[in-house]
Amino acid sequence: MSAHKNVLVIGGGLIGTSIALDLVAAGRNVFLRDLDEAAEAVALTRSNAQALAGQGVDVVIVATPPSTVAAVIRASVSEFPEAVVTDVASVKGSIAAALADLPEQAKARIVGGHPMAGREVSGAVGAQPHLFVDRPWVITRLNETTDEAVGAVREIASELGAVPIDRSAIEHDRAVALVSHTPQVIASLLSGLLVDAGASDVELAGQGLRDTIRIASSDADLWTDILLGNAQAVGRNLAALARELQSTADALAAGNHEVIHEVLAQGAKGRSRLPGKHGASAQETTVVVVRLEDKPGELARLFTAAAQAQVNLEDVRIDHALGRMTGLVELTVATASSGQLVSALEATGFTVFA
Amino acid sequence: MSAHKNVLVIGGGLIGTSIALDLVAAGRNVFLRDLDEAAEAVALTRSNAQALAGQGVDVVIVATPPSTVAAVIRASVSEFPEAVVTDVASVKGSIAAALADLPEQAKARIVGGHPMAGREVSGAVGAQPHLFVDRPWVITRLNETTDEAVGAVREIASELGAVPIDRSAIEHDRAVALVSHTPQVIASLLSGLLVDAGASDVELAGQGLRDTIRIASSDADLWTDILLGNAQAVGRNLAALARELQSTADALAAGNHEVIHEVLAQGAKGRSRLPGKHGASAQETTVVVVRLEDKPGELARLFTAAAQAQVNLEDVRIDHALGRMTGLVELTVATASSGQLVSALEATGFTVFA
Repeated sequence: MSAHKNVLVIGGGLIGTSIALDLVAAGRNVFLRDLDEAAEAVALTRSNAQALAGQGVDVVIVATPPSTVAAVIRASVSEFPEAVVTDVASVKGSIAAALADLPEQAKARIVGGHPMAGREVSGAVGAQPHLFVDRPWVITRLNETTDEAVGAVREIASELGAVPIDRSAIEHDRAVALVSHTPQVIASLLSGLLVDAGASDVELAGQGLRDTIRIASSDADLWTDILLGNAQAVGRNLAALARELQSTADALAAGNHEVIHEVLAQGAKGRSRLPGKHGASAQETTVVVVRLEDKPGELARLFTAAAQAQVNLEDVRIDHALGRMTGLVELTVATASSGQLVSALEATGFTVFA
Repeated sequence: MSAHKNVLVIGGGLIGTSIALDLVAAGRNVFLRDLDEAAEAVALTRSNAQALAGQGVDVVIVATPPSTVAAVIRASVSEFPEAVVTDVASVKGSIAAALADLPEQAKARIVGGHPMAGREVSGAVGAQPHLFVDRPWVITRLNETTDEAVGAVREIASELGAVPIDRSAIEHDRAVALVSHTPQVIASLLSGLLVDAGASDVELAGQGLRDTIRIASSDADLWTDILLGNAQAVGRNLAALARELQSTADALAAGNHEVIHEVLAQGAKGRSRLPGKHGASAQETTVVVVRLEDKPGELARLFTAAAQAQVNLEDVRIDHALGRMTGLVELTVATASSGQLVSALEATGFTVFA
């Protein structure tokens, strides 16, 4: 057990409450506080954490909205003069900059953190155990941060099952601008085109559009905070994409075959850089498409057949059909296993094509 | 049986061969032709269609690459002076424009068509029966096209199980620019940012980015043709998005909270306009998240439990975990059924949160 046994979580949202819940289960003394009394009550019940009542605090985890994090860290290093203070915000550089004037002995105890997990739901009611298992937990430090303080946060991340990853604040912000914040803006703007579109146009939308704009449903308040907190790195990407979009529009107007082809080819090349399910970018996969009736039991029948064939599925995607109760399911499997899967499914009576 | 019994398919790719295959099964006399002799041989074998040898042709279906369609239609109305001539290209206005100088009695027999199906694989080897079942099949007409000619194409679309939908060429092109062509460019450009990114940045990518750029893997040759064939409608959207991206970048630089929030809120509003699985936009759905071990049998166990609970799944999405062999599965169900599903899954030992 850690020397940092007493942990205070500030902020009873999904992330804060989930952290508290797991740390209680791990045997820490966990306290939780929220400015909103009603939210705090729900979060305490949900996590089994306690309200703080004069106990000493070894680690403070700030899990408040991104725009408030710097102020809450500042208040916490003052209120708990011995504690390591960390946070869970999706932006790091702007928070570090806002703390630059703190004295060295305060900054020694401040560690940046970003667990990359769970945004499908929000609030304490969505809190769940094991939310961080296998997720990256990026850890950043100020120049003055001690190794001991970093160690205390790494220990918590590991205890929650996450994978601690060290980055500088600049590296973190550049990476999340690329893989998360810029895609959010792009999806939102593209999706925004649908607002004023005619119903007969929207009616023709298929799975491609559905996937491309899925994240446009994200929480607007939270994401406004996130984007403004990483304005420079995101803005740079957006400006670059604006120029490329305009060039592409110009190339279309000019009928420039070469430029259009290059845009598409570069896109395919970029897509291929994403790691596979288990970071297995090297493993060759094949997509097996199966047609099935859309009724209870069909998916069970499908996956039972796949399991009996001893084939491990890398990915599953369900394509929606228009009007009727049928669907296409795409199963991504290692190419070496695809023959085996196809035979098994066909033997079970499914219509398959690979 | 139709009066238009003899059908010639020109182009032995995925779409042409799949059409031929189903029409043979439906009892039509189907002929297939491809400029490439080897491709034609594969397509004939795969579809059970015949090579044309002097027989009369009632309907010609042009299924060649988009940039060649107008020329092939032109040649076909001349070669088969009694036949209805249709196509399957994803663009319609540019093809109609290229045929404007044809004599009225030729145009009377030309019908535009766009079956919106099956791009996951390509070529005759990927051809499959029932590819068009439940899919929209957009039908457009020239001013001179007769109702009889349209009827012949509608009959074929229906025979293939598709849903015929009438649109003008302009309406069609505007709709697919919005729901298909513009998203393709956006996904390709966003994905293109990954090409020169550092591995340590790409490593932090999650399911959000993966979904947003999934279609960036599309075939660059085919899509160059498609985009250039719908240059005006797509270019208009791209130019609008370029301006909005630049405004968003400016708002980030200025710290303009209101503008950023509006971008995100409009995106969420647009996303909510997409119809549900069965066009059921009105039905309220809930996402139930289940944690499972990533090994053969877990998905079968999950879907068996869901089936036993008599719950119909509207959507399934698998989220990838980093490093370890576990995963999160998101099940979308009617809100009214979600409690039932959660109870059933928990009773079977799954970790669930709804």
